[in-house]
Amino acid sequence: MYNGIVLDDEKLKEECGIFGIYGDSEQGLSRITYYGLYALQHRGQESAGIAVSDGGKVKHFKDMGLVSEVFDDDILEDLKGNIACGHVRYSTTGQSHITNAQPLVVKYRNGTLALAHNGNLVNAGELRRQLEKEGIIFQTSIDSEVIANLIARQDKGDTVEAVKQTVEQIRGAYALVLMTGDRLIGVRDPHGIRPLSIGRKGEKFVLASESCAFDTVGAKLIRDVEPGEIVVIDGNGLHSHYADMPRSKKLCIFEYVYLGRPDSIMDGNNIYMVRKKAGAILYKEHPAEADIVISVPDSGTAAAIGYAEASGIPFVEGLVKNRYVGRTFIKPSQKLREIGVTLKLNVLENVVKGKRVIMVDDSIVRGTTSRKLVQMLKGAGATEVHFRVSSPPVQYSCYFGIDTPSRKELVGANYSVGDIQERIGADSLGYLSLEGLKEAAGGLGCCDACFSGNYPMEVPVEGDKFILEK
Amino acid sequence: MYNGIVLDDEKLKEECGIFGIYGDSEQGLSRITYYGLYALQHRGQESAGIAVSDGGKVKHFKDMGLVSEVFDDDILEDLKGNIACGHVRYSTTGQSHITNAQPLVVKYRNGTLALAHNGNLVNAGELRRQLEKEGIIFQTSIDSEVIANLIARQDKGDTVEAVKQTVEQIRGAYALVLMTGDRLIGVRDPHGIRPLSIGRKGEKFVLASESCAFDTVGAKLIRDVEPGEIVVIDGNGLHSHYADMPRSKKLCIFEYVYLGRPDSIMDGNNIYMVRKKAGAILYKEHPAEADIVISVPDSGTAAAIGYAEASGIPFVEGLVKNRYVGRTFIKPSQKLREIGVTLKLNVLENVVKGKRVIMVDDSIVRGTTSRKLVQMLKGAGATEVHFRVSSPPVQYSCYFGIDTPSRKELVGANYSVGDIQERIGADSLGYLSLEGLKEAAGGLGCCDACFSGNYPMEVPVEGDKFILEK
Amino acid sequence: MYNGIVLDDEKLKEECGIFGIYGDSEQGLSRITYYGLYALQHRGQESAGIAVSDGGKVKHFKDMGLVSEVFDDDILEDLKGNIACGHVRYSTTGQSHITNAQPLVVKYRNGTLALAHNGNLVNAGELRRQLEKEGIIFQTSIDSEVIANLIARQDKGDTVEAVKQTVEQIRGAYALVLMTGDRLIGVRDPHGIRPLSIGRKGEKFVLASESCAFDTVGAKLIRDVEPGEIVVIDGNGLHSHYADMPRSKKLCIFEYVYLGRPDSIMDGNNIYMVRKKAGAILYKEHPAEADIVISVPDSGTAAAIGYAEASGIPFVEGLVKNRYVGRTFIKPSQKLREIGVTLKLNVLENVVKGKRVIMVDDSIVRGTTSRKLVQMLKGAGATEVHFRVSSPPVQYSCYFGIDTPSRKELVGANYSVGDIQERIGADSLGYLSLEGLKEAAGGLGCCDACFSGNYPMEVPVEGDKFILEK
Amino acid sequence: MYNGIVLDDEKLKEECGIFGIYGDSEQGLSRITYYGLYALQHRGQESAGIAVSDGGKVKHFKDMGLVSEVFDDDILEDLKGNIACGHVRYSTTGQSHITNAQPLVVKYRNGTLALAHNGNLVNAGELRRQLEKEGIIFQTSIDSEVIANLIARQDKGDTVEAVKQTVEQIRGAYALVLMTGDRLIGVRDPHGIRPLSIGRKGEKFVLASESCAFDTVGAKLIRDVEPGEIVVIDGNGLHSHYADMPRSKKLCIFEYVYLGRPDSIMDGNNIYMVRKKAGAILYKEHPAEADIVISVPDSGTAAAIGYAEASGIPFVEGLVKNRYVGRTFIKPSQKLREIGVTLKLNVLENVVKGKRVIMVDDSIVRGTTSRKLVQMLKGAGATEVHFRVSSPPVQYSCYFGIDTPSRKELVGANYSVGDIQERIGADSLGYLSLEGLKEAAGGLGCCDACFSGNYPMEVPVEGDKFILEK
Repeated sequence: MYNGIVLDDEKLKEECGIFGIYGDSEQGLSRITYYGLYALQHRGQESAGIAVSDGGKVKHFKDMGLVSEVFDDDILEDLKGNIACGHVRYSTTGQSHITNAQPLVVKYRNGTLALAHNGNLVNAGELRRQLEKEGIIFQTSIDSEVIANLIARQDKGDTVEAVKQTVEQIRGAYALVLMTGDRLIGVRDPHGIRPLSIGRKGEKFVLASESCAFDTVGAKLIRDVEPGEIVVIDGNGLHSHYADMPRSKKLCIFEYVYLGRPDSIMDGNNIYMVRKKAGAILYKEHPAEADIVISVPDSGTAAAIGYAEASGIPFVEGLVKNRYVGRTFIKPSQKLREIGVTLKLNVLENVVKGKRVIMVDDSIVRGTTSRKLVQMLKGAGATEVHFRVSSPPVQYSCYFGIDTPSRKELVGANYSVGDIQERIGADSLGYLSLEGLKEAAGGLGCCDACFSGNYPMEVPVEGDKFILEK
Repeated sequence: MYNGIVLDDEKLKEECGIFGIYGDSEQGLSRITYYGLYALQHRGQESAGIAVSDGGKVKHFKDMGLVSEVFDDDILEDLKGNIACGHVRYSTTGQSHITNAQPLVVKYRNGTLALAHNGNLVNAGELRRQLEKEGIIFQTSIDSEVIANLIARQDKGDTVEAVKQTVEQIRGAYALVLMTGDRLIGVRDPHGIRPLSIGRKGEKFVLASESCAFDTVGAKLIRDVEPGEIVVIDGNGLHSHYADMPRSKKLCIFEYVYLGRPDSIMDGNNIYMVRKKAGAILYKEHPAEADIVISVPDSGTAAAIGYAEASGIPFVEGLVKNRYVGRTFIKPSQKLREIGVTLKLNVLENVVKGKRVIMVDDSIVRGTTSRKLVQMLKGAGATEVHFRVSSPPVQYSCYFGIDTPSRKELVGANYSVGDIQERIGADSLGYLSLEGLKEAAGGLGCCDACFSGNYPMEVPVEGDKFILEK
Repeated sequence: MYNGIVLDDEKLKEECGIFGIYGDSEQGLSRITYYGLYALQHRGQESAGIAVSDGGKVKHFKDMGLVSEVFDDDILEDLKGNIACGHVRYSTTGQSHITNAQPLVVKYRNGTLALAHNGNLVNAGELRRQLEKEGIIFQTSIDSEVIANLIARQDKGDTVEAVKQTVEQIRGAYALVLMTGDRLIGVRDPHGIRPLSIGRKGEKFVLASESCAFDTVGAKLIRDVEPGEIVVIDGNGLHSHYADMPRSKKLCIFEYVYLGRPDSIMDGNNIYMVRKKAGAILYKEHPAEADIVISVPDSGTAAAIGYAEASGIPFVEGLVKNRYVGRTFIKPSQKLREIGVTLKLNVLENVVKGKRVIMVDDSIVRGTTSRKLVQMLKGAGATEVHFRVSSPPVQYSCYFGIDTPSRKELVGANYSVGDIQERIGADSLGYLSLEGLKEAAGGLGCCDACFSGNYPMEVPVEGDKFILEK
Repeated sequence: MYNGIVLDDEKLKEECGIFGIYGDSEQGLSRITYYGLYALQHRGQESAGIAVSDGGKVKHFKDMGLVSEVFDDDILEDLKGNIACGHVRYSTTGQSHITNAQPLVVKYRNGTLALAHNGNLVNAGELRRQLEKEGIIFQTSIDSEVIANLIARQDKGDTVEAVKQTVEQIRGAYALVLMTGDRLIGVRDPHGIRPLSIGRKGEKFVLASESCAFDTVGAKLIRDVEPGEIVVIDGNGLHSHYADMPRSKKLCIFEYVYLGRPDSIMDGNNIYMVRKKAGAILYKEHPAEADIVISVPDSGTAAAIGYAEASGIPFVEGLVKNRYVGRTFIKPSQKLREIGVTLKLNVLENVVKGKRVIMVDDSIVRGTTSRKLVQMLKGAGATEVHFRVSSPPVQYSCYFGIDTPSRKELVGANYSVGDIQERIGADSLGYLSLEGLKEAAGGLGCCDACFSGNYPMEVPVEGDKFILEK
């Protein structure tokens, strides 16, 4: 979910949401894609784009802004076709260009190819340098351009084969929706780090980063694309192909913790239920005597309710969120800084006054907002504040598509739990253990590198992440 | 709170939020006013405006849009002064003009007057016709222009006296923040129907529709402006005056039910606590056997938590809200209509499946969304759905600044509770009684005309409300 | 004509253009008004507005910008009616507000009144103070609001009588197009200082500041509105009324010199022919031996051709104008200042090299551009530059709707012709005499106060012009 | 010059203007580039872009719109560097995309390359297909992307050599300004069809499509880039290289006729003087007895003055042009079509009434406007209208960067001069002969294919021009 002013520094950011649909439609598929992207808006608010194919010609439109800002009825009307793919993108400021918006649409010997990509390649720089060595030019700084080049070079008529070869060359985390003139193709990396699901709406097949998009457009979740699977949808239905390489289930655990929408289902797990269960386990690991359980809204609420239920301590709302922060909101200057935190969150004094409070958040990244919230609660008369976090300390950078600060900014990488408790001024602090979190997630294989440092593949040394930009 | 696409038809809408501040400031008061208006944004999203006085010259800026869209740093920088007032406005489409945005700034014999107004006059049409009879011209369709004319005509040097005379002439619900070159004036109608509070930030006095704006700007709530009180703030501090007419406490009860922000305090009552208590009383009046209590987010949550606490049935989140609806969001066409409801709210199937569900909302206006939500819950596998509403049926139109549909659209005005239950498909339906709601609100005097038809003053016949527009 | 960067300081600026039309139309009159205003765009580029009446309801739209920027097809489509009036406005920066855009549309006891006004009242401040004394409020700083108030107060059923009384109260220069629900009214001040003409297009009557607008919309010029005449157009055709006060012909002579479009006809004179004749007389008054006659484009060209024809010296183009200067053009900083003049005008070196050049401009206001042009010509190899101006030195401020700099900035008010010649570096300098200019204009009565100081009525002391703004 | 509504169909359109500058600058070169592009604005009004290099890093900004609309001070401030190149583009609607805006900036093995390109390749499709065959992807539909790929593939360290090889592969008309991290390179095709000149401003070297840009930025024209020349500017000054292929002078003759700015010098010829001389020769070839010579402004004026001078018949202005047409101007619907022509041009009735008129235009493409102008003149009372055109009939499509209609729309390709005279209703019609035009242009080698069909190289068959778009 969007975190606005104050909490902006407190959460890790998803980098993209992708969507694709194949099938005849009177209405045109651009509108369904619009609603699908809207359901994925929490995965990226910087730019949005849709490409459609009418069987031959591919048209596309993309721009900076929210889905509802980028598209209007005329534009959607103009995007006619029976195959469509779309993309929403989040990005750090410096690389925020219209040129980097997706889908990337390229022409090559076998026609037109549109790519929508969520994730990050760890060998993009290497591949790019190699392609450059052969005389290739690059117009953007996105991995997708590397992927498009690899597919195009290897597509000597059999696009699926070219995709397969490309999958065998690229390393990293990625979910891809590709569209050619007459096919929709979904790809998930061999570890399945980034999510991608398959849905069905009548005769139409749908692909989306999260199943919540299926609910929004009236489709049903069939299953997830499997790690390393290449799903091809065309006039003959849906067919599976696999890259010839080892595969394993390593879904990003942070999708459960914070990134995914509560109503989505990944690997068979409903995200809300995982979060609620994480709260219950958190209670078992770190109980506290208190009068009320509150959450840091909205992302901490499911775990808080789980914690409350397990502990028998009542859940109440203790913080109110102002939902009107816009992109151009003027941040308080140094002088007004002290009023800053209440712009986004205000405490319900009557709820917390004289109470021993357990406050549950889903994660702590830098820790600055946590400290302010504890201060606010105490200022409002809470007699004790017990901070509970429904995931372990974030200690390692992500190289797989999540925007993490450098390690030296991660409070969990630099301080012990005891030190952090002191820094944020809480009366006690408890993080959910990694085992606890995995149990909540059903014990399935996950990438938990941000907590454990166990990367499922070799990664660059710190600081070398945005190598393509240099 | 803002309700977007699906619930748009289900809630009554506030018409305005007002703010004023007086006192020296290095930073300039326009920025504090900006944050104050931002805290009041839930009271109006159509237009925003700020006027400032530097002791002599009055400058102002207003435009259509959210506070964060209307103002940027350059504009705020340009609005220098040690007195400021601001306004956010909600309005029905037809009358949505930049000319109607506020504050209304006029020049007259004693200088410049800026008016920010929340409410509705019931004799505006009459007063206007009378003024027109004397040759007055009107450039807008807002009541504020009538008020400005009345003050200007009667201000023969003593502005406060002119305001007092004006208060004695106008009838209806209003909270006003007036600014002259050297004074800030707050006025509340003799019944105190619309809220207005006084705050203090160091040496500065602040006026705001709701006390949540004080928290946001680091001010402290002192007290509410009393019904019929005229509060004058100038170099000599704050002074009270009263119009010579009967006064009574009749705060709009819907501020408690839905309009006010949970963290605001009105008439000494914290709105969140009133709502939570209403939920508890609702349980006593309409218990139900069930497995879980869920709310229609966000406005039904406080009452749902109160209901859960009183009943011992656990509160969980059963519906997820998409928070990214923008002004220009394209509504689903007839063909896609069936997918409509999930755009804004999606059900957490894993939470409700196989469960007997109590769903709590704060109010029902037309009933169409209620029906869709019950369908969604049942579709997701809820075995029973018990609908509970933490206020009585809305049966009468409001003439005091709240945008209500015509009576024939109010489901509560046209059907019995039994019929409504049937229409929305719930297994049971219980509305909080008026007595219960009043008890939750601390037993204080309120205007409850929308529920009871007991208007605190004579009102026009149905349909004659927007008389000024004609 | 518009003069962009370099010449901006060199010309006097018109303040407004007005247009009105009455008559049935399938297409709707808003489109004709759009084209009419477009033809008058040279009279004002700051804001544009159109109001229409469908016999009862009056709708209007106005915004900052050129006619083609303010209106689009949807807006024009929405403005349906069989009466329309429109306005284009030029204004100095400080007072450039959307609130000051016209037509001013007000509601009053007898319905709705729309006013489009070109000109300036010299007793607006006095009238305004008097109205304020009676309790009237003002929302804008434009004279039109004073006029609207006067009409509204005096309109006790007979609008025309009220207009007549108003004409008898206001002093200054004005052309007005008024629209009520069922009438179009044109008014010209008793001296006829600002132009207003009557046209006919089939059954429709048209009013416009200049007859060029009639050509553009396919109407025919019938005659000018006479000084002090009130022309009323309604279902019974066109009727004339006259205010009861002395009348005389005092058309602003600068309309002939620079303001009017060459293809317009005022007082029976075609403006192009007046300018060309002025050039011929200028030759007689100030002959020069030279090889070529060039003009400062575009406004000096007619006179240059007249001069060339009279002298027998060939007219050629010696300066090229870049026509792409937009509103947001970035002015060269001090460092790049020296390249400034060539942004707007470049010299045709091959034309002027080795030649004795006569350069004709229509007027000199500040003289700075004149100096730069002489330098450019000499720099390009002109052996002599004889500067000829087809009007007398501008020496006095205008109080009748033309934006003149203060007297201390008028080079003609502070230096002798000999001194000016030296300052601009010309080999000779000749201004047309006032007699010569009047002869060119057919010997008709004109207001020539900017040249002679003979104001046709009492005017405020210097500097008190924008009294309404204070 | 820009021709707005009415004459839009009557002129051939240039496709681009390019600019480059190298040298140290305190101010930064982006501002000089801004003014340089502004001087070239007549060559393209659709999009504008600037790229700068600070010796290593290349930054760029481009968008749809006029130079003054695309750039503001903040953007220029952000574009720091001591090498800069810029581009203005005109394009037909269908291919009007931000993706096609220039300069094209690409990264490749040897760094960053920025390309600004004016012209059209005749073998772009063939080259593109060949590159695609090797696996290359294309993201735009502009020739420049083909050129960038060719350079990148062949640049194994020696960029100049790679450019030379590229020149030997591409066929067509082109002027290029290339920028690498540390060099500015200008290239002109071996026939020199599109213009490119070299200027000097102090220590700085400047490249521009036309020398008028040098005047605007205070630089001096040194010479034209020669056909087939590759001019390299770096820290060691300016060096020339030549592609190893036959070269000849074939400057596009239409630059003289209409496209170039009158104050530019190409191949040593001042364009204004060529046009004026063409008018004089036109008189010799097609004299007429008449009272006045008028021009179709602005492009016909130079020839009209030349015709007048040669004939002794006085030149006067007979048509007035409205200069305020904006991009979004609403075109008159069928109903209002008859008023269309006067929107853009109005006749000076008093000038032409009762006169025998010679009207001079620079060219006739479709002939529709010509017919309307003759009608307007006759309608205004001209007794005879002798139409004279200062170039031969346009009969063939251009494949070298000029947007020509298909041959069946070219009136000169389908009708005899006699037939055309009849169609446009003129009393006589005379076109300048190709010999006459060449004489005016100083007898130098020109590409005159649009008049003669003598293309300087093999061209595609009609209709295959936009082959890259397909």
